[in-house]
Amino acid sequence: MAARSGGRSALARVVSVLEAFDADNPSLTVNHLARRSGLPVPTAHRIVGEMLKLGLLERGADRKLRVGLRLWEMASVAPQARELREAAVPVMENLLTANQQQTHLSVLEGSEALVIERLWGRNMVVNFTRAGGRHPLHATTGGLVLLSHADAELQNSFLSSKPRAYTRYTPTDPSRLRRILAGVRDQGYVVCDGYLSLETVGIGVPVRSATGEVIAALSVVLLRREARPMMHVPAVMTAARNITRALVQGPARQRPPWFFPVAEIVAGAPGQPAARVQA
Amino acid sequence: MAARSGGRSALARVVSVLEAFDADNPSLTVNHLARRSGLPVPTAHRIVGEMLKLGLLERGADRKLRVGLRLWEMASVAPQARELREAAVPVMENLLTANQQQTHLSVLEGSEALVIERLWGRNMVVNFTRAGGRHPLHATTGGLVLLSHADAELQNSFLSSKPRAYTRYTPTDPSRLRRILAGVRDQGYVVCDGYLSLETVGIGVPVRSATGEVIAALSVVLLRREARPMMHVPAVMTAARNITRALVQGPARQRPPWFFPVAEIVAGAPGQPAARVQA
Repeated sequence: MAARSGGRSALARVVSVLEAFDADNPSLTVNHLARRSGLPVPTAHRIVGEMLKLGLLERGADRKLRVGLRLWEMASVAPQARELREAAVPVMENLLTANQQQTHLSVLEGSEALVIERLWGRNMVVNFTRAGGRHPLHATTGGLVLLSHADAELQNSFLSSKPRAYTRYTPTDPSRLRRILAGVRDQGYVVCDGYLSLETVGIGVPVRSATGEVIAALSVVLLRREARPMMHVPAVMTAARNITRALVQGPARQRPPWFFPVAEIVAGAPGQPAARVQA
Repeated sequence: MAARSGGRSALARVVSVLEAFDADNPSLTVNHLARRSGLPVPTAHRIVGEMLKLGLLERGADRKLRVGLRLWEMASVAPQARELREAAVPVMENLLTANQQQTHLSVLEGSEALVIERLWGRNMVVNFTRAGGRHPLHATTGGLVLLSHADAELQNSFLSSKPRAYTRYTPTDPSRLRRILAGVRDQGYVVCDGYLSLETVGIGVPVRSATGEVIAALSVVLLRREARPMMHVPAVMTAARNITRALVQGPARQRPPWFFPVAEIVAGAPGQPAARVQA
């Protein structure tokens, strides 16, 4: 793989081809692909040809190129996403059943929050989130939870990076952000009211590994005009603990969640008033 | 990318490294990786080194190699998995809420069924399925649904491939399989009773695109000893139609599913008796 041209190794050029695709550009022509990946068109043609042969790329009905299902399949083996997802999805299911709000799970990747799972109903808030999408650390609940537990080096470099203001409520001032991060650590949750969009408010809590380190953030997104965020905090905090329990225990044989879905989520025990999270 | 050695191109060797990982081997040492991918250890070392640099591979806490979250992220852009998932997940949510059975969505990939989404609760049947996993076409509901609508060439080559018997109930005889496939096309669903495991029974139905072609299979898995499969067929068939509707319409603003979840699923309208799928 050491053969180089244009200063980039062969494999680096393949990666730059894959990086040319994103949520807004899931399908590309070779010329568009070459432009976005900074490759000469003939080079792009040659690489694409081999990637098609190996199933890393496919052609859609529109003849455009797209990331291949075969690559998706090979990548789905990534355990750091899979193990956490295996533990989290049933718990996120219960949370969704109880509070009927979009819920997602994100992990720190570089200096952004990477969403590795997302559940929602057809009637729910539609926001920017998608599985595989990235969120800014300072403007989303997942990002702030992850940043608040990141090492000092990342915190300092991020806070001094002049984070972008998405709305007039987005915290961008380093000292204000430090106060928010301290609050997340103290209270164990964060509420982002209009930080990323004026329509939505989010609640985020840390998800801990069996050894207690923060490995992910669990979030729910609500419509601001309907939102009573504090009402959802107990459910989300308990759900995060249930994920940790599932990571430790593996799939438990317990009473069906539909037998007392809300009680299980709010208090981990039957008989709690559903109204606390449902009303 | 044309530089070759050992008859395989540089990129083909990278793919063979990725293919060395699977659900049973999510983490590998370089030596184990070299063995599984059929590469000389020095070659494996060199390729792994560059894949680590580019984030295609990572090292776990145990120092073993695993597929990188960065690759997972790049692959998550694959639209053929994502668009279908975006349409299907809310409907699968409703189905799970209504019948409390594991549900998954699979597509035809090569001569197997590739599971692209799976939802389940902590109390539910644990089976072989995982997102990104593959299922045999003759022994699973998803596989039989997809095979029944595949082109004649694939059907013939698969039926003559001496499919494996997983249990004493697995259909392997070509003429029996052809009758089953005809039944799927006639009835619009299939029930697999102990085909893959003696513990489980599955129900599968086709999911059609806006233009009516079968693009996926929607399945639920039940415990055989508790199973009343026919009770679930209307819900699963209706859910498959709801996925097609979502593919056509995009996310609909409708009454909350928790207002009449079962009715919505069974009949697409309020007021239907929940007992039909819940009891």
